[in-house]
Amino acid sequence: MLAPAVRAELCNRLAAAGLPRVEAVSFVRGDRVPQMDGAEEVVAGLRGEAVFAGLVLNERGYDRLAATGLPEVHLTLAATETFNQRNANQSVEESIADCGRIVERAHADGRRVTVTISVAFGCPFEGAVDPGRVLEIAERLDASDEIVFADTIGVAVPGQIRRLVSQGTGVHLHNTRNTAIANAYAALAAGATVFDASVGGLGGCPFAPRATGNVATEDLVYLLHGEGVETGIDLEALIHVAQWLEELLGRALPGQVYRAGIFAA
Amino acid sequence: MLAPAVRAELCNRLAAAGLPRVEAVSFVRGDRVPQMDGAEEVVAGLRGEAVFAGLVLNERGYDRLAATGLPEVHLTLAATETFNQRNANQSVEESIADCGRIVERAHADGRRVTVTISVAFGCPFEGAVDPGRVLEIAERLDASDEIVFADTIGVAVPGQIRRLVSQGTGVHLHNTRNTAIANAYAALAAGATVFDASVGGLGGCPFAPRATGNVATEDLVYLLHGEGVETGIDLEALIHVAQWLEELLGRALPGQVYRAGIFAA
Repeated sequence: MLAPAVRAELCNRLAAAGLPRVEAVSFVRGDRVPQMDGAEEVVAGLRGEAVFAGLVLNERGYDRLAATGLPEVHLTLAATETFNQRNANQSVEESIADCGRIVERAHADGRRVTVTISVAFGCPFEGAVDPGRVLEIAERLDASDEIVFADTIGVAVPGQIRRLVSQGTGVHLHNTRNTAIANAYAALAAGATVFDASVGGLGGCPFAPRATGNVATEDLVYLLHGEGVETGIDLEALIHVAQWLEELLGRALPGQVYRAGIFAA
Repeated sequence: MLAPAVRAELCNRLAAAGLPRVEAVSFVRGDRVPQMDGAEEVVAGLRGEAVFAGLVLNERGYDRLAATGLPEVHLTLAATETFNQRNANQSVEESIADCGRIVERAHADGRRVTVTISVAFGCPFEGAVDPGRVLEIAERLDASDEIVFADTIGVAVPGQIRRLVSQGTGVHLHNTRNTAIANAYAALAAGATVFDASVGGLGGCPFAPRATGNVATEDLVYLLHGEGVETGIDLEALIHVAQWLEELLGRALPGQVYRAGIFAA
């Protein structure tokens, strides 16, 4: 577990490496998710050029975010009833309504809102997820500024990415079955402009069994730069952040590029 | 290090899982590459439906292969002079000539020959590799039955795959920078029909610094099946082979699907 001051330092290092946006905190209950405790303290320590965002699960979370002054709100709901019940303790329909209310408040306050639809490519409880249903949920959320499709449990293959992703949408990929970079490549070809990732591949989801393997930011940037995409990110500096984090945690992270190094071609 | 009988058992389990071809042995000098020692003993233990092949580095190696009766020969040479000198102790030109002689002998003996061009996407000593030069080498080897382009040090990105791969060629991918599955996906789209892989992602190259990360066969098959390719491979059985190998070696292998499991959608 990382203290709030260290989490702020991590975000600041990511901003310094040129990451355009950093989800810095989650406004959740510290007694339920202790590793996310002290969000306000983290925000107080943020500086740099990046747009810093916070994840909120409900209106109480939004109240907390608004009090910190963060400019961007991240919301999430699940594509399946079972996952949403376990994660948010309410139906998908209720979560859509909640999102709608928060989007309205955020826009009234001048904030940008991203909504992530989790388990969009497969659910640990319900199995296959109908892409038609995912697109229907996305449409209901079109008051938000951005939709991100999440492969929360890392089961997607590129064919599924091609069916959901269109120009300007986002993807949130996990590398649990080694498909994250292939999926990112397919998403790029399909017009995705937003790619979630986690430095070193750190993280997971406290509510999804074995949801290891957020795709590592460095690995994603290696692909994007290799494909000629200009990200504004200094990959060498980003690798140093992953190495710093590895040392801090005292264990190897799932990312590969930070260990192998950039190829100087 | 695995004893010859265990290596034969591994090959037989792979054949039983439906792998169409298995490179079972390398006919190299046991004193130089002890983990490959005892090739003849391995071949004596092979059984099953797969086509078993052997890697040979020169005509002495071919003599040994021919004595075992294996039906398929794998040859390799490098796309760059420095790598070829270090690996084969001769120039690329000399290796092309050697390959030509072995192809001729193998064909006269009724054997199929695959030639792998290593460091085709980047060389640890020379850096970037001109795709034009790689294609030129491939053309010189067109008496062989199959050409495989190898990303020996795991630096390739899909754009490079698209430039080299055409209908019917093969790829040999390493996941050192997490791009192997994305590269396989690009190769599939470009018409590749041969995909090298290693169960569990075991292996590397004794002559390439830090050439970890052969792409894991299970991870590759997860992608291929997800994309609707019929491989004839029983992925569940293949995962059991990786789990058996993990237990045998007493350490986690780089493959991800064998640990995460198939997603039952």
